[in-house]
Amino acid sequence: MIKVGIVGGTGYTGVELLRLLAQHPQVELRAITSRADQGMPVSQLFPSLRGYVDLCFTHQDEAHLDQCDLVFFATPNGIAMHHARALLDAGVRIIDLAADFRIQDVAVWEKWYGMRHACPDLVPEAIYGLPESNREQIKHARLVANPGCYPTAVQLGFLPLLEAGIVDCNSLIADAKSGVSGAGRKAEVSIMFSEAADNFKAYGVSGHRHLPEISQGLARAAQQEIGLTFVPHLTPMIRGIHATLYARIQCDADLQALYEQRYANETFVDVMPAGSHPETRTVRGSNCCRIAVHRPQQGNTVVVLSIIDNLVKGAAGQAVQNMNIMFGLLETTALTSIPLLP
Amino acid sequence: MIKVGIVGGTGYTGVELLRLLAQHPQVELRAITSRADQGMPVSQLFPSLRGYVDLCFTHQDEAHLDQCDLVFFATPNGIAMHHARALLDAGVRIIDLAADFRIQDVAVWEKWYGMRHACPDLVPEAIYGLPESNREQIKHARLVANPGCYPTAVQLGFLPLLEAGIVDCNSLIADAKSGVSGAGRKAEVSIMFSEAADNFKAYGVSGHRHLPEISQGLARAAQQEIGLTFVPHLTPMIRGIHATLYARIQCDADLQALYEQRYANETFVDVMPAGSHPETRTVRGSNCCRIAVHRPQQGNTVVVLSIIDNLVKGAAGQAVQNMNIMFGLLETTALTSIPLLP
Amino acid sequence: MIKVGIVGGTGYTGVELLRLLAQHPQVELRAITSRADQGMPVSQLFPSLRGYVDLCFTHQDEAHLDQCDLVFFATPNGIAMHHARALLDAGVRIIDLAADFRIQDVAVWEKWYGMRHACPDLVPEAIYGLPESNREQIKHARLVANPGCYPTAVQLGFLPLLEAGIVDCNSLIADAKSGVSGAGRKAEVSIMFSEAADNFKAYGVSGHRHLPEISQGLARAAQQEIGLTFVPHLTPMIRGIHATLYARIQCDADLQALYEQRYANETFVDVMPAGSHPETRTVRGSNCCRIAVHRPQQGNTVVVLSIIDNLVKGAAGQAVQNMNIMFGLLETTALTSIPLLP
Amino acid sequence: MIKVGIVGGTGYTGVELLRLLAQHPQVELRAITSRADQGMPVSQLFPSLRGYVDLCFTHQDEAHLDQCDLVFFATPNGIAMHHARALLDAGVRIIDLAADFRIQDVAVWEKWYGMRHACPDLVPEAIYGLPESNREQIKHARLVANPGCYPTAVQLGFLPLLEAGIVDCNSLIADAKSGVSGAGRKAEVSIMFSEAADNFKAYGVSGHRHLPEISQGLARAAQQEIGLTFVPHLTPMIRGIHATLYARIQCDADLQALYEQRYANETFVDVMPAGSHPETRTVRGSNCCRIAVHRPQQGNTVVVLSIIDNLVKGAAGQAVQNMNIMFGLLETTALTSIPLLP
Repeated sequence: MIKVGIVGGTGYTGVELLRLLAQHPQVELRAITSRADQGMPVSQLFPSLRGYVDLCFTHQDEAHLDQCDLVFFATPNGIAMHHARALLDAGVRIIDLAADFRIQDVAVWEKWYGMRHACPDLVPEAIYGLPESNREQIKHARLVANPGCYPTAVQLGFLPLLEAGIVDCNSLIADAKSGVSGAGRKAEVSIMFSEAADNFKAYGVSGHRHLPEISQGLARAAQQEIGLTFVPHLTPMIRGIHATLYARIQCDADLQALYEQRYANETFVDVMPAGSHPETRTVRGSNCCRIAVHRPQQGNTVVVLSIIDNLVKGAAGQAVQNMNIMFGLLETTALTSIPLLP
Repeated sequence: MIKVGIVGGTGYTGVELLRLLAQHPQVELRAITSRADQGMPVSQLFPSLRGYVDLCFTHQDEAHLDQCDLVFFATPNGIAMHHARALLDAGVRIIDLAADFRIQDVAVWEKWYGMRHACPDLVPEAIYGLPESNREQIKHARLVANPGCYPTAVQLGFLPLLEAGIVDCNSLIADAKSGVSGAGRKAEVSIMFSEAADNFKAYGVSGHRHLPEISQGLARAAQQEIGLTFVPHLTPMIRGIHATLYARIQCDADLQALYEQRYANETFVDVMPAGSHPETRTVRGSNCCRIAVHRPQQGNTVVVLSIIDNLVKGAAGQAVQNMNIMFGLLETTALTSIPLLP
Repeated sequence: MIKVGIVGGTGYTGVELLRLLAQHPQVELRAITSRADQGMPVSQLFPSLRGYVDLCFTHQDEAHLDQCDLVFFATPNGIAMHHARALLDAGVRIIDLAADFRIQDVAVWEKWYGMRHACPDLVPEAIYGLPESNREQIKHARLVANPGCYPTAVQLGFLPLLEAGIVDCNSLIADAKSGVSGAGRKAEVSIMFSEAADNFKAYGVSGHRHLPEISQGLARAAQQEIGLTFVPHLTPMIRGIHATLYARIQCDADLQALYEQRYANETFVDVMPAGSHPETRTVRGSNCCRIAVHRPQQGNTVVVLSIIDNLVKGAAGQAVQNMNIMFGLLETTALTSIPLLP
Repeated sequence: MIKVGIVGGTGYTGVELLRLLAQHPQVELRAITSRADQGMPVSQLFPSLRGYVDLCFTHQDEAHLDQCDLVFFATPNGIAMHHARALLDAGVRIIDLAADFRIQDVAVWEKWYGMRHACPDLVPEAIYGLPESNREQIKHARLVANPGCYPTAVQLGFLPLLEAGIVDCNSLIADAKSGVSGAGRKAEVSIMFSEAADNFKAYGVSGHRHLPEISQGLARAAQQEIGLTFVPHLTPMIRGIHATLYARIQCDADLQALYEQRYANETFVDVMPAGSHPETRTVRGSNCCRIAVHRPQQGNTVVVLSIIDNLVKGAAGQAVQNMNIMFGLLETTALTSIPLLP
């Protein structure tokens, strides 16, 4: 049994990790921390877990995390970097669901996240946890940077095109729409029901923190610099990301075959039949990414539709997938439940 | 392995049965029928099932249902009654998710459902499939009438009070609110998104088909005639029923203890701590019914809050629970997945 | 022109007052205050008002409210009572949209609102602003306590029955459902989109602040003490209240005629045809209350369905209606726009 | 008074026309037709109109439309073209809210709409009713083709760039998101609440009927052929379109100033301050189009955000605006109500 701790369990990625790990046959949940809610039973805050999770939230100092095999950080940005060194030194492996270790260029990270990095020396060691790109490295990683939700959907959508080198890398466009849970479980006016329901808006057009993360991943796939315009939007649903991707084709190719081959061995990427329009609800609660590729009017623009559940493949599910890989388990363990539709 | 067939697989109870049965370790899905969509892969209509269900819809005549151990009818009212006799004669057991066998008084059934009953002689044999009331009878049943969604939530909420005989049975009130999926998957203007979203309404105040079914169950529990006012409402959510129940207390009692004792051995009924307000989302996708009992200002009105997922405990989940009981399996098999929150 | 000031303009009742008053032909908006957002153009916070409202939020001390003819308090509970005396002394009339002056029994008020009343001597003078009950008194009022949203829907629904004395006053039940905007525009986790969407729950079953307000009004109408069970619920829509009311009939009556006669001269109360089920969206954005009265199965329980837009007839619209009455204007002025459906 | 008839009043554009025209001071509503609901009071189908519209639906043959000054067709595509000739001959002016007269190239129209055009000879006379492009021609038009909802949002967003000739016309991208009311009021499974809520999807990626209409308008503005990729999406809200537009800049320009100047005299186009993200709810129920223009990271991609209420500026409101222009009225008559927020 893998002894697991979770730091920061009161947010949506925390409760989603609990949902998945509580039924993981090879995981023993040892501790889940929360400063604000220490002492409260987890199932009081999240009654959906009544009967499944008996733990109480504990203070991080009393959680004995150094006795875990693995610690997940489901914390805001800028927390994991303060604790990573001590845990690694104690032999604990780490998966950070926040952004602390996602960007290899520390200066870029500090600019976008507006703080000094607490342990820049660990950044080079951190492995970016997108298994469809990085599986081999993840196996042996001590420190995994779990990708952001937008970056997961956008990268999985673009990878086949960029790896094949058949599109203009300088004019990529990612028009992405997210459900409101992507903003986290926090009291902010802009994500109140009465503000976000029956409404649609773009945000962060001048620059969103996920832009450098996506660009880094796409550049790696393309093996050259890329130019990306990334526009995120907020849509009135709870879960789900729909990324609509645009690129200009430079050489002809059978796009459908390209995608099917690229993901032939990937359990969690479903290339849909030609002509499909994947709906976000078809992955609700699951770790699946569904992709459809279109070439409207046989012109030179390729349109890729890529959808995920932002809390699963975009966060907690991908983290569990990474854990399974790191510990040599079947990659799909605890990730096989069928999406909830309707 | 239990050989299972499903008649009428294109509605919401059908796809929900598929979601649950596809991961049931002792079930072999043999056939799923649809007149309109025969030949189409199930996963084309419901992409959430891609990779989990490989069947195509077949015409009922070619489904070889008589070779099944169990057939679920996930059809509109008035279908199962035409096929029950032949299947039973072939040794097939039946769970009807529609209303054909729910009402023991055939005249009452014919009045509320507006059609002649096709096999009134089978009605006395039919067992009402509410395990928390009827478990022993279900074990040996050939023909189970799976309860309606409102009746499940209302009966589970009222049973302890009526069995204990401590409330006035003549003035029961059930104010129930349902998500829109309760209306089924059919093309009707009134349940379109633009009609049902951001809106709330009562319906069927003068009389809803679930009234006689609820009354029958409550009278059985109370062992006397009961008087019930039942008002259903449509609320803009996909899944969930919230029944708010009112009764006048006639003799004093420790209500919290009464409920806890009544359901102490029921896995799928969760009596919440005193003072709780169960939210429908805490059972989303699960077979759980959560109940809280209140006595405002210590007056003589008891208020019971009872919630279920209408498609699970209110339909497909309860049907699988009944199947598990009928075939001597662990009652929770395939029904243990954690509710999806948020 | 009536010179009008608004204290506390950044909440939903504030922006709704602005929407209505900006097109009121006899109103001159002089000031709108906000401590937190002083200096900010109103239309920056609420872009829906671009081109209609040119004011900036000002600090209350610089708003010269004593030069207004009328001041609306769209503030949290417990604010207006600190400013009422000074304004009244300056000859300014007041409409308080919060609860400070709604309850005539100050001890009851202090118990439910958890604070000492700052000017109990003004309470007896305050007129409860439900025009359908109190129109004559409102005409001459200096200080109007604008009713709460639930109390408006519940009282308008019960009044005809209680005034006619045909129901048992000791067992009234009000099962009320509110859209989320009723909770105000404030950053709280429980009213976030991801918490409140696709969900339904009761709250405050043990006692809600609107209970004493409703009881006071119903007792006045019944001219006797009444017993009321009031259960509020949160439903995933932005605007709207649907009150489902239950009472036991003691003497026979033509209920439809009773309601039609009671409200024959009330522009803002629409008694719908027998058998109707009013939908909240049919009053979206309007000051109308629609009511339908039912007697299921001709039993002795009457069911009344009463709907309003909580921000209009339940708050800002009723306040404008009161203003029109106080200043001798046509009661419907600025309140004639057609509900927005769909 | 302008005598007005409406053909096809039971859809969303029909009820929205009624909402606007019922309070238009210079309009006399003479008839509203419906084959299916003839004889039914309009306010029975749409209770929001109770007290505002006293008409019943009539059969078109009995509506005496030839005695109107103006007839609106709020019908499905392919209806108006059968009646236009007779009405024009009778001296009646026409505004068609469907697509029959929007495309000047009849062959293109017939290909995209899948039917033969019934009166191709009238097409050259039809004026495309986008007042911000065509105001002078609309004044004298007998037959106005009211633009589609997507085409309105997309054209208003792109016009300044194309007229100024500063972007590459061959790689325009319009990623558009629509509320569900854009699909009309019809019983189809895909737009049911339980299908469309909590879900997001693209549709018609291979080609949507609005593509040729948009292309025609953009080409006219650019005075050259254009290449456009248009991807529509369905988002779970009732009203609203959000078009996110992408173009490559070829020559430098002050984009903010360009947009402000272009629309300086347009009442219904609101160019928001630099850096804005317009939200669809800020135009809910109004005829306003709000636009923001961005240039992320000062790169060579311009991003334009353009929002409308699809039922108002995207349909009925624009039709009334066209009527006002055709009959020499103040263009804003009956179109001044403030958006409903929240």
